[in-house]
Amino acid sequence: MKELDMAYFGGIETGGTKVICSVGENPEHIVSDVNFPTTDPPETIQKVIDFFKPFYEQGDLVSIGIASFGPVDLNLDSETYGYITTTPKPGWQYVDLLGEIQRAINVPIAFDTDVNAAAIGEQSWVPGNRSLDPFLYMTVGTGIGAGVISNGVPLHGLIHTEIGHIPIPHDWGKDPFPGFCPYHGDCLEGLASGPSMNKRWGVQPEMLSDSHIGWELEAEYIALALLISIYTYSPQRIVLGGGISKHRGFHQSVRERVLKMNNGYIQSSVLLENIDDYIIAPKLGNRSGVLGAIAMAKNLMENIEHLPTL
Amino acid sequence: MKELDMAYFGGIETGGTKVICSVGENPEHIVSDVNFPTTDPPETIQKVIDFFKPFYEQGDLVSIGIASFGPVDLNLDSETYGYITTTPKPGWQYVDLLGEIQRAINVPIAFDTDVNAAAIGEQSWVPGNRSLDPFLYMTVGTGIGAGVISNGVPLHGLIHTEIGHIPIPHDWGKDPFPGFCPYHGDCLEGLASGPSMNKRWGVQPEMLSDSHIGWELEAEYIALALLISIYTYSPQRIVLGGGISKHRGFHQSVRERVLKMNNGYIQSSVLLENIDDYIIAPKLGNRSGVLGAIAMAKNLMENIEHLPTL
Repeated sequence: MKELDMAYFGGIETGGTKVICSVGENPEHIVSDVNFPTTDPPETIQKVIDFFKPFYEQGDLVSIGIASFGPVDLNLDSETYGYITTTPKPGWQYVDLLGEIQRAINVPIAFDTDVNAAAIGEQSWVPGNRSLDPFLYMTVGTGIGAGVISNGVPLHGLIHTEIGHIPIPHDWGKDPFPGFCPYHGDCLEGLASGPSMNKRWGVQPEMLSDSHIGWELEAEYIALALLISIYTYSPQRIVLGGGISKHRGFHQSVRERVLKMNNGYIQSSVLLENIDDYIIAPKLGNRSGVLGAIAMAKNLMENIEHLPTL
Repeated sequence: MKELDMAYFGGIETGGTKVICSVGENPEHIVSDVNFPTTDPPETIQKVIDFFKPFYEQGDLVSIGIASFGPVDLNLDSETYGYITTTPKPGWQYVDLLGEIQRAINVPIAFDTDVNAAAIGEQSWVPGNRSLDPFLYMTVGTGIGAGVISNGVPLHGLIHTEIGHIPIPHDWGKDPFPGFCPYHGDCLEGLASGPSMNKRWGVQPEMLSDSHIGWELEAEYIALALLISIYTYSPQRIVLGGGISKHRGFHQSVRERVLKMNNGYIQSSVLLENIDDYIIAPKLGNRSGVLGAIAMAKNLMENIEHLPTL
């Protein structure tokens, strides 16, 4: 590899509604940045390629990380590795996202889910988070998902985590809404995503007043999701992000409910005495995903450089 | 380290009702084996020490693995590392299990939960399981718990997984039993452990006839637990063990319900076409835990031997 004057990493976050692309060395040194709506795959992917092409042609682009909405295929041995697979998003089923970009921009490309990338971003770039493992990032917005770093790398396997679709207790007396998931009805996402709140109350969540019962119900469902996350992953820190989490007082309301639901069972001072530092808001704001993608691009090169030379 | 004629590893599984100790090289070469009831800590620990002492004094014992009921402290930096902590089992709160054994038997000792050890045992000693990661072992018996191997090592963090205590949907109309967990009432363990079945139906689970509605309800709860495990950990294989799982047809009944609950959401052929090989019974029978402890003892020495010599 030639010595580069400029060694930039590219980050791409493809979301359900918009795409963010960024080029730079790290969060403090971003040289270019763009975002645009997610339309059909050919147009959207072309815009991604157009953004990176100049850096690629100047030889300044070392590698890229892609953080994609899912489900995606993360199995390196699969013929559809790097594809978006069974998404309900019209036109995006079985799109070869990684392949299309790779054919235009021939640098090493890392690929993962948007939430795993966000977990990598918050863990890699926020100093106090680096030693915390497992490390969990949960987003509550258009969808609900979680990324988990375990023993230093994102948790993958059969596919990837799909915590948004877990069954959770649903008190039909308190909440007669039947849920809004086409697969499961009243799973976590069916009860507590932004579109579910919209459907239940007839308005966008941000239109609900602070004192609306909808916020209490939402905090209750997300506290259940976090309690389940704590009991399954035993994370050392949880970052709770996404549009819904930005509602005033939401983190505090969720924390109180988690402690109440735990009822003293897990006796960890981190949880019992210091929950404000245990369940936190993203430090990278809306940029956890794309900055995580840049971290993935950087990690990829460090791993490649550690391989024995032939 | 002197060359040993005999290089044996010790395994200890401390369960809520009995303790198993074993010495050998691997599952095919076990040289001695004992089990006895778990009574008070001093008597129980003395019996463990008495079993290993002859091998230790002959210099044949290389290392030990301990697989303990929990909660346990797995944090290497903690003052109570190796302790059983907040267990409801009378007399066993804050017992220094690892320390007491270590002071009598001065060999390297690995320490983990019984379920993590069982996961290690099934993954290490069953050839077809070795490459499958994440790998999950769930036990359903006196308690409900799961061990998860992720990226090659057991998932630990804040503490360890406590999946037995997750909240799950509870249809009070179908099952008016309020649950039996002193902390959470109708959590998974509160609804579906052996003692909960006993309390609900007034007899030991093994006394219920094959056609008793209790078995359907139990399969439903365990299927919920496995669906949640699949959506959170994305394991490549699940071993479902423990006394309750031995009921005739139980695995098949759970598999059918998992597929029904998934409702086509996770589109993996492993799950959809081959679930008989995905959710399986333990291949090591009742010995997953103690043989996992032996694997832990062996792994510990391999890791120590890979360290640079001074």
